[in-house]
Amino acid sequence: MDKLNPEIADCIEKCLTCYSTCLRTATVFKPTTSDTVAANAHIRLMLACAEMCRTSAHFMILETPHHKHTCKECAEICLECAAACEKTGGMQDCVDACRACAESCSMMAA
Amino acid sequence: MDKLNPEIADCIEKCLTCYSTCLRTATVFKPTTSDTVAANAHIRLMLACAEMCRTSAHFMILETPHHKHTCKECAEICLECAAACEKTGGMQDCVDACRACAESCSMMAA
Amino acid sequence: MDKLNPEIADCIEKCLTCYSTCLRTATVFKPTTSDTVAANAHIRLMLACAEMCRTSAHFMILETPHHKHTCKECAEICLECAAACEKTGGMQDCVDACRACAESCSMMAA
Amino acid sequence: MDKLNPEIADCIEKCLTCYSTCLRTATVFKPTTSDTVAANAHIRLMLACAEMCRTSAHFMILETPHHKHTCKECAEICLECAAACEKTGGMQDCVDACRACAESCSMMAA
Repeated sequence: MDKLNPEIADCIEKCLTCYSTCLRTATVFKPTTSDTVAANAHIRLMLACAEMCRTSAHFMILETPHHKHTCKECAEICLECAAACEKTGGMQDCVDACRACAESCSMMAA
Repeated sequence: MDKLNPEIADCIEKCLTCYSTCLRTATVFKPTTSDTVAANAHIRLMLACAEMCRTSAHFMILETPHHKHTCKECAEICLECAAACEKTGGMQDCVDACRACAESCSMMAA
Repeated sequence: MDKLNPEIADCIEKCLTCYSTCLRTATVFKPTTSDTVAANAHIRLMLACAEMCRTSAHFMILETPHHKHTCKECAEICLECAAACEKTGGMQDCVDACRACAESCSMMAA
Repeated sequence: MDKLNPEIADCIEKCLTCYSTCLRTATVFKPTTSDTVAANAHIRLMLACAEMCRTSAHFMILETPHHKHTCKECAEICLECAAACEKTGGMQDCVDACRACAESCSMMAA
């Protein structure tokens, strides 16, 4: 079978790890703020980030040239999600997974 | 429940229709060309287009502002898929679904 | 292109409508109960139901014989989701979409 | 953040590995048989297996009790996919990933 190159394989792995971490974090999130609008926006951001990571991995596995576009968007939403999770606090796993994914996807998009 | 506005609801419907049409067309495709590399690239394009449509719908349902980015990419890959399906021939359903989705997503991305 | 039969096409449509309705309902849900564990379980049920509907549609589009298994599970989780949404109240769209999907999937699974 | 237990985390990882391997194998598959109906059915089986693995992982991440049902179906389709890939030959990565996923999912479903 034609093999994926190691850089793409590494980026796929980071995307799938970020997908599962974001989905998990959104799922177990118990907002402590009374600002329910902000908490709700944060949950939707994590769910969107999870979906984008999954799709970005999908495009790399399919080896379509469009993976550069999905990786670019994935890097962007991951950085935004990392910032929101850092601000909320107690979500370091998600911050780390998002930043690792963003860095790898940025290189793929270049 | 907060309702989606009619334009977004219409775009979601077009994305999901295009998703199912592309996946279906890729699934039943029986290449008649001896150019297996081209046929394989076409199948991967249809599978990627199906995935992008699904994700674009997902982002609109979540009402994240990032849906403008996914709609922009969705419009682009749909136009490319429509052109490839038109060139191959016998795939008018997929051509039509891709173009309708591309037009709707372009408006959303603006 | 080989066409899907009308019953399968109808079930796919009901699954995709239920997917988008469940995801939407989970996204805009603002729990009024102080029972955060129950509210959280309900959100996770809606997200799982959305995912199952999407996969059930996917299997029917692919026309794999395994669609009977995914339709069976889809019907089951849809009924559970409908009951939870009815108990919570104010989610009639989701109750209706889940029941219509469950009925159609049950027939497919038979 | 509430942590997933190690057995579930391991099963999620095996599901996501099997997802990417099945999707990749289906994508690069160049049938050598003149039996196009059989080759087409095999591709659809790999695509369905990829989707089921993704959904099975999703259900475990969401920690919904329904994950037992999705794991059961995932184990079943993985074993069928492994057998088809072994018969075709030259797809040992996919055979191995499917069997590892099936074994792990079977334990989860019990």
